[in-house]
Amino acid sequence: MNKIAIVGYGTTKFSREEIPVESLLLNATKSLFDQNPNLNQKDIDAVLVSTNDNTKYLSAILSELAGIQPKTAHTVESLCNSGTNSVVSAYSYIASGLADVALVVGAERRNSPGQILEWDNSRGEFKHPIFWGTIFTKAHKRKFGTTEEDLATVSAKNHKYAHDNPNAYSNKIYSVEELMNSKILTDDLKVSDCSRPCSGASAVLLVSDKVVKKYSDSPVWINGIGQKTLSASFTKNQDFSSMSSTREAAKIAFDMSHLDPIDIDIAEIHDAFTVCELMAIEDLGLVSKGNGAKFVKTLYETEDRKINPRGGLIGTGHPLGATGVAQIIETTQQLQGTAGKRQIENAKVGLVHNMSAAATSSTVLLLQS
Amino acid sequence: MNKIAIVGYGTTKFSREEIPVESLLLNATKSLFDQNPNLNQKDIDAVLVSTNDNTKYLSAILSELAGIQPKTAHTVESLCNSGTNSVVSAYSYIASGLADVALVVGAERRNSPGQILEWDNSRGEFKHPIFWGTIFTKAHKRKFGTTEEDLATVSAKNHKYAHDNPNAYSNKIYSVEELMNSKILTDDLKVSDCSRPCSGASAVLLVSDKVVKKYSDSPVWINGIGQKTLSASFTKNQDFSSMSSTREAAKIAFDMSHLDPIDIDIAEIHDAFTVCELMAIEDLGLVSKGNGAKFVKTLYETEDRKINPRGGLIGTGHPLGATGVAQIIETTQQLQGTAGKRQIENAKVGLVHNMSAAATSSTVLLLQS
Repeated sequence: MNKIAIVGYGTTKFSREEIPVESLLLNATKSLFDQNPNLNQKDIDAVLVSTNDNTKYLSAILSELAGIQPKTAHTVESLCNSGTNSVVSAYSYIASGLADVALVVGAERRNSPGQILEWDNSRGEFKHPIFWGTIFTKAHKRKFGTTEEDLATVSAKNHKYAHDNPNAYSNKIYSVEELMNSKILTDDLKVSDCSRPCSGASAVLLVSDKVVKKYSDSPVWINGIGQKTLSASFTKNQDFSSMSSTREAAKIAFDMSHLDPIDIDIAEIHDAFTVCELMAIEDLGLVSKGNGAKFVKTLYETEDRKINPRGGLIGTGHPLGATGVAQIIETTQQLQGTAGKRQIENAKVGLVHNMSAAATSSTVLLLQS
Repeated sequence: MNKIAIVGYGTTKFSREEIPVESLLLNATKSLFDQNPNLNQKDIDAVLVSTNDNTKYLSAILSELAGIQPKTAHTVESLCNSGTNSVVSAYSYIASGLADVALVVGAERRNSPGQILEWDNSRGEFKHPIFWGTIFTKAHKRKFGTTEEDLATVSAKNHKYAHDNPNAYSNKIYSVEELMNSKILTDDLKVSDCSRPCSGASAVLLVSDKVVKKYSDSPVWINGIGQKTLSASFTKNQDFSSMSSTREAAKIAFDMSHLDPIDIDIAEIHDAFTVCELMAIEDLGLVSKGNGAKFVKTLYETEDRKINPRGGLIGTGHPLGATGVAQIIETTQQLQGTAGKRQIENAKVGLVHNMSAAATSSTVLLLQS
């Protein structure tokens, strides 16, 4: 079986601007080519596009725009974790021997059709994600005594870290107090608790161990993959204060890689809402259940970037199809020691956590330098 | 490396009716479960949906409706060859060890957004596929002297074979003369030259050799896979009388399987328009270039079902995301000897040819019993 490494990446800035999805895809791809002088269009066996956009045939369109004539080419969609699912698909094309070099590009326009959960009648009329965010928050507060200050601390931390991410949607630093006075949207959520839709694209290059030397002296290996879909409906969740699909995906990924939560040096967490960061670090086993807020407070006060060093979805923005890919890029940079001001010292093992639709499905990846 | 077999299938009827995509997906899946008593929902590691529908998160929705909680779940889209590309993706998940059992379900509503080629400005205002169908036909006529009768013979043959396909859109038999009097749509195409959009869904079950015995005594193995994307734009084609992507995909598939065109007992060909069947059987090497029409005439006159035994896209209908899956089902039934009235005697090797958007991309699969 081929081993699979990430050897290149490229990204656009994440922004409020309305940009055509084709331009987003091409610009992230250009950025990847610019950073990988040894990469030739002819090398690329597979082009996978991750998006919720309604435009069809985007992998062929991107391929033509970028001068690539791949064997495998298609779009992958699974809402907010389309990005990591595309990377897992690219992994499988390489591991199975159908490809040696695969390009994955995630892109989303700010007004993506993936933002409204049209299908889930169990939500009644509340189809915007903010409603499940609210119920999660209410449940976590009730069960673990989570406070508004705890939530604001997640947001303050992620905004602070995003300050050093040149591609982030927001580069402003806010105090916990400022965020606690942010505009109230629902009973339990303020503007500052929410990740924001934006336009953006991110690309990664995956290769087999057979050809890895041509592309990188510091490959980052994908050693653990966990995916789990429990339902499509929010209300199938048994317990709104934890994410079952995340727990199951993490178990699969840790088992596959023979790693444990204690081995993790850096984790990219899907903080769609502030409470999601707390829930996920608990459900991934990085801290015990109910201790998420205390842990995040310590990280914030000590400027420890272990969780969401690029600023998370809250600081960086959340262009749905690009998010999982962007999380993988940050983890790759951290493990390669090229994350600049955001660098965590001596990071060897990274975790990526990406999920969809109230954590009805989750993906967990474990990467190693 | 795991070997991968097709061990089950299910389908809906293809029809003019407007049916919600969720119902189509579920009905094909139910049909598959009905025919595979040893299959349990818990066995399924991956659920891939093939469609051009704009509805998001369909793999999770189908999984929930069908009581499946898979690891891998996402939608695959690459226009008209989404079906075969999804099956190749499922193959790679199993070959790579990430899954042992994968369900692929292709579905399309009659009014699919995949039917209009919005992106290709090289077509000017002619965004409906019939315009590339016309130009292909014109080019093939000019180069090889193809006649209206040759084209009508393809349609008459495929309608005749569809008569014995209970799931086909059309079960009417027409004479060549009748079809030559069919309504004229463009300079070179009549209604009878065109495959028709319809609602329909088809599902296949893929498994690794490790677990194959649980599900089938007559597995059909995927031994050759060829995929090629040359462009997204019709006018990038150098020669409108042949399909370069089909030739390249066929070469890759034949090389992988160590099979040759002469080994093929039955072929499912993507006859989006009548001329496409002629071009494809030539470009796949089943006959030499320019001899397609003569070959099809002989098949028709001798009732030899070697090409498109279920009636092709023209007789069966073309629900975009389902088509490639339906082609694989027919080939599987032929190789298992369960195709009933449509059965080709002693079929051992089958070929599936599926393509998108004026053959700007093609997939070729080689299956063996």
